[in-house]
Amino acid sequence: MGVADVRAAAERLAGRVIRTPALRCEALDRLAGAEVWLKAENLQHVGAFKARGALNGLSLLDPAVRARGVITYSSGNHAQAVAYAARSFGVAATIAMPTDAPSVKVAGVRALGATIVFAGTTSDDRREAALALAEASGAVIIEPFDHPHTIAGQGTATLELCEQVAEATDGGRLDALIVPVGGGGLLAGACLVCADAGIPVYSAEPRSCDAFARSVEAGARVDVQPGPTLADGLKPVRIGALNWEIAGPAVAGVFRVDEPELGLALVRLLLGAKVLVEPSGAAALAVALRRGLPVQAAEPAEAEAEAGAAKSGAEPGTGTGATTRGPRIGVLLSGGNVAPELVAQLLGEHGGSL
Amino acid sequence: MGVADVRAAAERLAGRVIRTPALRCEALDRLAGAEVWLKAENLQHVGAFKARGALNGLSLLDPAVRARGVITYSSGNHAQAVAYAARSFGVAATIAMPTDAPSVKVAGVRALGATIVFAGTTSDDRREAALALAEASGAVIIEPFDHPHTIAGQGTATLELCEQVAEATDGGRLDALIVPVGGGGLLAGACLVCADAGIPVYSAEPRSCDAFARSVEAGARVDVQPGPTLADGLKPVRIGALNWEIAGPAVAGVFRVDEPELGLALVRLLLGAKVLVEPSGAAALAVALRRGLPVQAAEPAEAEAEAGAAKSGAEPGTGTGATTRGPRIGVLLSGGNVAPELVAQLLGEHGGSL
Repeated sequence: MGVADVRAAAERLAGRVIRTPALRCEALDRLAGAEVWLKAENLQHVGAFKARGALNGLSLLDPAVRARGVITYSSGNHAQAVAYAARSFGVAATIAMPTDAPSVKVAGVRALGATIVFAGTTSDDRREAALALAEASGAVIIEPFDHPHTIAGQGTATLELCEQVAEATDGGRLDALIVPVGGGGLLAGACLVCADAGIPVYSAEPRSCDAFARSVEAGARVDVQPGPTLADGLKPVRIGALNWEIAGPAVAGVFRVDEPELGLALVRLLLGAKVLVEPSGAAALAVALRRGLPVQAAEPAEAEAEAGAAKSGAEPGTGTGATTRGPRIGVLLSGGNVAPELVAQLLGEHGGSL
Repeated sequence: MGVADVRAAAERLAGRVIRTPALRCEALDRLAGAEVWLKAENLQHVGAFKARGALNGLSLLDPAVRARGVITYSSGNHAQAVAYAARSFGVAATIAMPTDAPSVKVAGVRALGATIVFAGTTSDDRREAALALAEASGAVIIEPFDHPHTIAGQGTATLELCEQVAEATDGGRLDALIVPVGGGGLLAGACLVCADAGIPVYSAEPRSCDAFARSVEAGARVDVQPGPTLADGLKPVRIGALNWEIAGPAVAGVFRVDEPELGLALVRLLLGAKVLVEPSGAAALAVALRRGLPVQAAEPAEAEAEAGAAKSGAEPGTGTGATTRGPRIGVLLSGGNVAPELVAQLLGEHGGSL
């Protein structure tokens, strides 16, 4: 796979997905010591980037096959995404979900008209349930992460972010991108785009479910026993095979974030950038807030430098000039489906922190 | 004044303000029985539309006058906006704020480098303080709402929303727009744009501070004694004179919203659309959620109807067709600066309501 697959997916998805905004927030920039670009996939259909991969997957099915309906397994956001994509194509969806899925995600799937089958608590448990359903019905499984169509679809979020940065900065580009990793769909898609663009990619995952970081350190894909974490979207037993093949050799570094960092990042995004993310969606910002990325601001492109000089010249002494900026860090906010009680609790714990 | 003033402001502000997204949310559409377009000015610089008017005001000052610094009076968001605009032009700002201004807004002003003078709790109190400061220093007052430059700047939010609706719907337009009203800057600007576009405008204000609704009903501008409300941004004693002149005869109807409606609308925006607004910023959505607007969906424009037919033809039987949609209602989300404790409290009261 390569960036061409992501570009093809982007053309296929035009008009079907939301071109979510790339948000900036001065308070977060100060905290991160960087120019932070937040790709707000919490504002995507169903509140998560997963809509991209699911819509790409269903788009690429033969219509006669698609008409039999689709099946998937997911802790939540991919479930809603497949339910949404199936409804938009007018076909049925059956979803295997964990028994401990957040009720907000279960309700979201039901509201979209899909059928839910509850199966265990691990990604292996629900995958087995989905395979049995597929065998019985002849319906196709839309893989949550380990499939080229899913990866290409998720990559379109990064492709858009790169375009948006270039549009807003007269041809500038990111100095680094931080991506939350569970099964690795978003990460693998990001790696395809960033390999082409020459942008280093860093992963972010909960310390208690660090399958990707352990795999990178071991030089081979390893399993973990997922521990408890607020980041219910980042709990697979292992990264996908294709995802590992793409992302393992491509990432510039891996980060493990602790639970309080997730909560604090969520609250800072809420109070600073005014957007609600789920804890999984805050993981990449948590890494940016550590100020630990080994990246510096690149020299600006010629057009960007000229534009920066022109803008800063409006009032002598007040412009910052394009050459003095901090590194430009992309942060993928993966989703925003979170229980209201948890948001209230985290505001109580971290509300004064911005 | 007319739409030409707003268009000129939009050209002047290009690159200085954020073209905030026009958000859609399926859950909110269902609740409102309409196609709701949320203009997310909570994602504007300083978290509120006020940045538009302040930047327009400072842009239009003679540079020698501007260099003396600027003064304003505000319950919060206009204060931050003038502080932001002054900093971006490299000049000083002094702000008269009420003694009961939310600490998040006071902190925001301080972080932007402005000087704060506390003065009473009403808009009259702080205006007097600002006039005294201006007399003593020779610095110009940037009016929070009752000034053509402020009104033209605020109008650019509505102008953008109309453009965004047209871009996203192949030339379609809003059937109605709902605007929160305090001093009337956002409302008057919206009326200038919507008079030109033929879109009916409705106002939304707290029942306890209903100066505009009372004025419309009396046929003349009247004062109120502002009662307590969560909507601290909508508490002026009266609408501005120029604002009244523009908006009084132009609005299609007025709405008073109750305090629980503000809280519920805030929570629904947070959990549904994934954005944080302040209670003032939720007032217009509260009106939309009543389903009480006397508007119907307009016949689609020719291009829009053709595009709708083409899209719905992708899968027989699944397209909704452009002619069957509900009314298309624009909702201005004016700002997002709110105390974390209040958000936590409202989530506790309304968290299960979406």
